[in-house]
Amino acid sequence: MFISFEGIDGSGKSTQARRLAKTLNARGTETLLTREPGGSEGAEEIRRLLVQGRSERWSAETELLLFTAARRDHVERLIQPTLARGAWIVTDRFADSSRVYQGLARADLRQLVEELHRLTIGMEPDRTFIIDIDPAMALSRSQTRGGIEDRYETLGLGFQQKLRKGFLELAAETPERIRVIDGSGSEDEVAARVLAALD
Amino acid sequence: MFISFEGIDGSGKSTQARRLAKTLNARGTETLLTREPGGSEGAEEIRRLLVQGRSERWSAETELLLFTAARRDHVERLIQPTLARGAWIVTDRFADSSRVYQGLARADLRQLVEELHRLTIGMEPDRTFIIDIDPAMALSRSQTRGGIEDRYETLGLGFQQKLRKGFLELAAETPERIRVIDGSGSEDEVAARVLAALD
Ligand SMILES: Nc1ncnc2c1ncn2[C@@H]1O[C@H](COP(=O)(O)OP(=O)(O)OP(=O)(O)O)[C@@H](O)[C@H]1O
Ligand SMILES: Nc1ncnc2c1ncn2[C@@H]1O[C@H](COP(=O)(O)OP(=O)(O)OP(=O)(O)O)[C@@H](O)[C@H]1O
Ligand SMILES: [Mg+2]
Ligand SMILES: [Mg+2]
Repeated sequence: MFISFEGIDGSGKSTQARRLAKTLNARGTETLLTREPGGSEGAEEIRRLLVQGRSERWSAETELLLFTAARRDHVERLIQPTLARGAWIVTDRFADSSRVYQGLARADLRQLVEELHRLTIGMEPDRTFIIDIDPAMALSRSQTRGGIEDRYETLGLGFQQKLRKGFLELAAETPERIRVIDGSGSEDEVAARVLAALD
Repeated sequence: MFISFEGIDGSGKSTQARRLAKTLNARGTETLLTREPGGSEGAEEIRRLLVQGRSERWSAETELLLFTAARRDHVERLIQPTLARGAWIVTDRFADSSRVYQGLARADLRQLVEELHRLTIGMEPDRTFIIDIDPAMALSRSQTRGGIEDRYETLGLGFQQKLRKGFLELAAETPERIRVIDGSGSEDEVAARVLAALD
């Protein structure tokens, strides 16, 4: 079983992905927690090019190619071998982030995203959870974090609102795979909603 | 006018690209010399991921996506603006290297190379010179160089022979754009052949 978490910046994806992987492992289901961009050795090196620096560092098209390169490495070196030996994968972001970030919010490249995905990735999670939250609340939760991985966060609240709309539209397009999870409330409350949606 | 040099490792591409750019500038045609992978700031950062390290570091597909990302950056940030202001470009490698390396010699990905090129690059040089040389001669010329950019050179003579065959086939497929230049003899002799083919 291959599960992804998606949502705007600071929505609680990493927190919930970590909690779900922990719960599944405690239940006896071997589960590997991973993330994008990154997750495999090569993809983590590509990640550094993507999440650091100015937001204009790459055009949307170049950025999409780099995300796709990182995803390809992640899929073939980590995700597929792990699923093949019968373990589960919980990933903090996957292809839906490209659909919404490069496909819609940063640029209007949705068709290019789908073509590159079909040509070079060709797989989807079995289940995707979108942690849905008001961008202002996500921002206030995240502001305490700091760090150099802020290439997207500098794009501002209007950008996060576009992202949220994009994720919700994607969920409406893909109801068989994607579940929208209310991301407000405590970590425990959100984690309980995720488990309820999974079982 | 947009000119590319192609050929196997150590065939003399960099030497001849540099000489042609110098000759054109001396004749009063403003000409920018550039190279792939690289040529623009971002593409040079991607280059480091591609030319250093073990040859199995990336699968052929991931490698192709990284080359395409670097090429996109190079085209939109350097090549197109330069051509738009009326200057010429001489580049040491361009898309034909992907057609032959990832498309044929390292893996059988020619169709994927063409699809990615159509989706994200969509331009070709006006003229391409393939510097054609026996791989054993190229190897003996290059062995004195050293350095850390040896990810391809470690693949050996059989690989270089595959590359040579691939470049010659590509030239036969694309006679309107590609000219094969005999790369044997002195630098001056090869440079004279290039100029004769250009004029
Ligand atoms: N339910 C919650 N209530 C309050 N704070 C939370 C909750 N969930 C997560 N946080 C805090 O909000 C911040 C963002 O959470 P997290 O890092 O999980 O989000 P994210 O979606 O992974 O963000 P990013 O997109 O930047 O990676 C963190 O500081 C985290 O501790
Ligand atoms: N005509 C020539 N005769 C002898 N030596 C040459 C000639 N042309 C180039 N060389 C030398 O051969 C080596 C390889 O040439 P060059 O670097 O131009 O090849 P290249 O095709 O750019 O190689 P690479 O693919 O590794 O970048 C260099 O040391 C160069 O000085
Ligand atoms: Mg996170
Ligand atoms: Mg060279």
